[in-house]
Amino acid sequence: MNSDADIGGLFAPERVAVVGATERTGSIGAAILRNLDDFAGEVVPVNPSRDTVFGEPCYPDVGSVPDPVDLAVVVVPPPVAVDAVRGAGEAGVQNVVVITAGFSETGTEGAQREQALRTVAAEYDLNLVGPNSLGVLSTPPGLNATFGPSNALPGSLSFMSQSGAFITAVLDWANDQGIGFKDVVSLGNKAVLDESDFLAHWRDDPETNVVLGYLEGVEDGRSFIDTAREVTQETPVVVVKSGRTEAGADAASSHTGTIAGSEAAYEAAFEQAGVVRAENVQELFDYARALDGLPIPDSERVGVVTNAGGPGVMATDAVGDSRLSMASFTDGTLSELEATMPEEANIYNPVDVIGDADIERFETALDTVLADDNVGCAIVISAPTAVVDFGELAAAIADRQAEHETPVVACLMGGERTDRAAELLSEAGIPNYFDPARAVSSLDALAVQREVEARSYEAPASFDVDRERAREILVDGAERGATRLGVEAMDILDAYGLPTPDSELVDDQAAAVSAAASIDGDVVMKIVSPDILHKSDIGGVAVGVPQSEVADTYETLVTRARNYQPDATILGVQVQEMVDTDAGTETILGMNRDPQFGPMVLFGLGGIFVEVLEDTSVRIAPVSGREAGEMIDELDSAPLLRGARGRASADEAAIEEAIQRLSQLVTDFDAILELDVNPLLATADGVQALDVRLTIDPDEL
Amino acid sequence: MNSDADIGGLFAPERVAVVGATERTGSIGAAILRNLDDFAGEVVPVNPSRDTVFGEPCYPDVGSVPDPVDLAVVVVPPPVAVDAVRGAGEAGVQNVVVITAGFSETGTEGAQREQALRTVAAEYDLNLVGPNSLGVLSTPPGLNATFGPSNALPGSLSFMSQSGAFITAVLDWANDQGIGFKDVVSLGNKAVLDESDFLAHWRDDPETNVVLGYLEGVEDGRSFIDTAREVTQETPVVVVKSGRTEAGADAASSHTGTIAGSEAAYEAAFEQAGVVRAENVQELFDYARALDGLPIPDSERVGVVTNAGGPGVMATDAVGDSRLSMASFTDGTLSELEATMPEEANIYNPVDVIGDADIERFETALDTVLADDNVGCAIVISAPTAVVDFGELAAAIADRQAEHETPVVACLMGGERTDRAAELLSEAGIPNYFDPARAVSSLDALAVQREVEARSYEAPASFDVDRERAREILVDGAERGATRLGVEAMDILDAYGLPTPDSELVDDQAAAVSAAASIDGDVVMKIVSPDILHKSDIGGVAVGVPQSEVADTYETLVTRARNYQPDATILGVQVQEMVDTDAGTETILGMNRDPQFGPMVLFGLGGIFVEVLEDTSVRIAPVSGREAGEMIDELDSAPLLRGARGRASADEAAIEEAIQRLSQLVTDFDAILELDVNPLLATADGVQALDVRLTIDPDEL
Repeated sequence: MNSDADIGGLFAPERVAVVGATERTGSIGAAILRNLDDFAGEVVPVNPSRDTVFGEPCYPDVGSVPDPVDLAVVVVPPPVAVDAVRGAGEAGVQNVVVITAGFSETGTEGAQREQALRTVAAEYDLNLVGPNSLGVLSTPPGLNATFGPSNALPGSLSFMSQSGAFITAVLDWANDQGIGFKDVVSLGNKAVLDESDFLAHWRDDPETNVVLGYLEGVEDGRSFIDTAREVTQETPVVVVKSGRTEAGADAASSHTGTIAGSEAAYEAAFEQAGVVRAENVQELFDYARALDGLPIPDSERVGVVTNAGGPGVMATDAVGDSRLSMASFTDGTLSELEATMPEEANIYNPVDVIGDADIERFETALDTVLADDNVGCAIVISAPTAVVDFGELAAAIADRQAEHETPVVACLMGGERTDRAAELLSEAGIPNYFDPARAVSSLDALAVQREVEARSYEAPASFDVDRERAREILVDGAERGATRLGVEAMDILDAYGLPTPDSELVDDQAAAVSAAASIDGDVVMKIVSPDILHKSDIGGVAVGVPQSEVADTYETLVTRARNYQPDATILGVQVQEMVDTDAGTETILGMNRDPQFGPMVLFGLGGIFVEVLEDTSVRIAPVSGREAGEMIDELDSAPLLRGARGRASADEAAIEEAIQRLSQLVTDFDAILELDVNPLLATADGVQALDVRLTIDPDEL
Repeated sequence: MNSDADIGGLFAPERVAVVGATERTGSIGAAILRNLDDFAGEVVPVNPSRDTVFGEPCYPDVGSVPDPVDLAVVVVPPPVAVDAVRGAGEAGVQNVVVITAGFSETGTEGAQREQALRTVAAEYDLNLVGPNSLGVLSTPPGLNATFGPSNALPGSLSFMSQSGAFITAVLDWANDQGIGFKDVVSLGNKAVLDESDFLAHWRDDPETNVVLGYLEGVEDGRSFIDTAREVTQETPVVVVKSGRTEAGADAASSHTGTIAGSEAAYEAAFEQAGVVRAENVQELFDYARALDGLPIPDSERVGVVTNAGGPGVMATDAVGDSRLSMASFTDGTLSELEATMPEEANIYNPVDVIGDADIERFETALDTVLADDNVGCAIVISAPTAVVDFGELAAAIADRQAEHETPVVACLMGGERTDRAAELLSEAGIPNYFDPARAVSSLDALAVQREVEARSYEAPASFDVDRERAREILVDGAERGATRLGVEAMDILDAYGLPTPDSELVDDQAAAVSAAASIDGDVVMKIVSPDILHKSDIGGVAVGVPQSEVADTYETLVTRARNYQPDATILGVQVQEMVDTDAGTETILGMNRDPQFGPMVLFGLGGIFVEVLEDTSVRIAPVSGREAGEMIDELDSAPLLRGARGRASADEAAIEEAIQRLSQLVTDFDAILELDVNPLLATADGVQALDVRLTIDPDEL
């Protein structure tokens, strides 16, 4: 990311130099020049071996161009591409698109070349797109600096893609569908500018209504979340992130060399950033069109007006599958419908105006439904009948929608007869689908965006913790040469305010007895050795030890450890308060680091819930209070924390606080690579961390 | 269902009478006559008040038509419709379509009218479609006996729909898409003929390749499963069952008055019957087209050939989401691709022939991939480029697919430029989609059908059971006036070969002592009273009773029961062998009756798994061995029966047998309305039913 740079010049240059301009048929240089034919500004060919290109004077390098160049498009072969970019930089060009391929996507030599490109870009503070890019495009100035076969129609969608071929396919298809764009950028290898830069740019672009992305990975996870979170508060961002599945991630890696973070991390990051995630191409454009053309609904309750019972039921099913719900009409609406609809009509939602409904009846029903305060959005469905002209119905729908400022999606179901109607609707921003399920899915995207815009950003809490003490424990471990710490590191949790049982690490019998004496009642004793990972398995844990047996137990545990592994380093024995685990629910609070997104906090119920049912929730740290609450809500097993089957309800506020404190700990220390509090006992009165394991990287301390 | 009747005459009549024929503009009678214009046979108008209709001689009733009528289409008003049908029956007409509405969908009077219609149909053994039907249509004889606005193109899909409006929408759209039909029927109220009749008919129709259905419910669940199971072995059946969700079911009920069975029952029934279930309209036709045009694959392993990396990754993701998997190529394939593809190409699956690929390179790659034995089906993806003509690529794909007889789906991605290619592909039976996910989803439908056709039908096992003893226990209960039986009914399970602990119901202290003596070790004692449902709650269960305390415990239990409810009927105390539940996993085996499908057997792990996580599997009884195995496989918690987390693996064969024996019990006795074996303890050595509750209907005994 080239943070804070103004990259607007990429999309609104006055003078564009094509470095590597040529007339050769089939060449990329010629294709770009042809695509630039309609550009409102000036196009300058640059090529040292030509005097003119397509009749225009050609310059040997960018520095020789008499007037200032705002954008250089580089298409020269890879060995000279870096020099060409340097030349542009020297000439004072701020914006460069490197079309040339043969960089990091092709192996070691290419990777070195890409590093050189990055260095040059940094030296001249260039806004550099690519390399290995199809180019950039912006419709207001008629700029098509791509070598693709199609131009874009004007519109208010801005689109970034990590696949250039996908852009060519999308533009060809979108032209046919009447879908237009503001800006399009092929991200290429993202050597300098990445998705976060474009997100930040389009946030401030009044001509961009919706941002679309095809991504196979993000460059910098943290900056993506921080940037996207702000953008999505105002401008919807819809993304297909591919490489979701294991097979897909392998394919993406061989496609662009992307080493993607885990799917769980992306899922969490998109959720936290308010990105509307599309699973496939159809959803990408269905969501984008709805978000572009329609207002955000006041609620997720849908009203349906149909002249066909079956499709009305299908729409209702799709609503049931979505986050939407069917609106319950007010008594006023029901009386009104009863008064105006024929007897055979169904006045309850979905409203069936029946097969002989004319436009007027449709209008009356739609007007009544849209006026209902319980209705946040609506779907109008019509099968073809002799009494309904789809064009007239489309006009009526567009009118009603404009008047009520409530989002409406149409299902005028048919073939060619719907074409004109679909166009009319499209002009009003209203999508039309044959399949009621797609209409519902579009409204669902609006509901997601509604939830995102309603969020008030809450900075992660900063608790008063003893960071120094935590550091000391980590440093102590590192100095011992340990990379894995166990129960001896419980004090780290204590330092960060996570409740732990009374406990002391002792290294002789007498100290054990005295430690136990300071604890009321029976105790738990655990051998502490960095060389013994599974201490239970070797009999290294004694539970319910009476005070009188503490001394003997100390010896027994140490002897067992010695017998198990004579050369094991034994740090001593942890003498711990006995906690009644039956008094609560065992949960797991953990963290690992994602290559793209950094520390990822995990919460779930212990045992089978994590291991067999994989019922866990994940967020990228730092985790806010709202997000910690969502982590509990998302679990299928959440009812077990809420009194299901006669259990005591756990103190959810305490769990949320524990999640946030752990999040603070792992954000503070990059040296903590992995951490598991297992179990974190959740009771009605709070939580207690009963054991911990962590892995550290001493180099980060 | 009108079983065994030959209903072919509905679709292939020689002479059709339109009863209620008229020339009046906007009337249904006139619309049908107009739609019948292209009919290859003869159309005879019938209307007592006219001499001619549209210039054709008109007869007062069907009986007056001089030549035999094969099909009567009835459009007269409801009050005279039943008489019109009777007239047709008297005249020897076998096939009748009642278009007229105003029957069971409109209230009591209508329901009576529908009953009268049913009676007349039975009297004359009529194949009656409707009432409240849009009509029937069959393309080979040019028969369009509907009042819809569109006719159908010829094709090999046969389509039945419970929504007439949906048919009008589909035909209009399908004509535009070039999708053709063999037969179409609007089922209407299904007074006589229902979905099972048409399934059975189309099974034997060589011109029908795929059956499509839009259903809101099925009339007779058992007959549907039995019929569909046979049909789907040869002819794919794709169904949208709407009213899947609670809101959808309510909407369906108000649409057609359908009282649907539970969604769980439909899900199980479709699975058992081999029906390919579509969730929405798009899937319905995507699946149908793939099943119509393409061969069934040899395996579910997909090869992908693409000139665009991004869309290749998208396809791979979609494969990861489906039941398909990405094929691993043989070494031979890899060498061949390495030899023939350029260096920058990716020869692993998805094969990326890269952006400059021409038709020849596509052909070579596709040929190589399709020749690989590991490849069961394939997807060809192309973004628009200067070197690929989509028409030529389409022809090449069609050629390769025909030669290799392996299903191929295309994603030639673009707008208008794909139109001709899509047509060419369509003629070869190959669907083309812009979205790779839809291509994958089509192949997924083929994989479902492959699994269905590979099934060998296995009749449910018939175990040697003591049916008479089970009946006696039920009758005893009924004679006591009980509708709920508890542990006293354990012998019913025993009679059906479900293992139960040693146990005896006793009604005095001495008998208790002697019963306990015949059991080794401590015993469990439970109060038995039809008036005390939750015996644990009142202290009515004693666990781990030593032989010496049996007499006292007997008194204690009876006293507690008396104190709790002085007038309770106390049948005695069950003295049961003590079973160590920690030695196994507690499961639940249950049954309830679905209004449409009858006895529905449920299996799951006990406690939170059923109650909180709702992790259960369901099949309609009788359940076969294969199906019982699937019931275990489907559980998310299945690993807990298979040794997860150090548990002993349960004896799955014993569980499967228990499921089948329970299935036999509830199939034998309609009087058992509900039954729960809870827990059924599953250990490594078998299963044991530890408790039972059932609800009976004495009238069914």
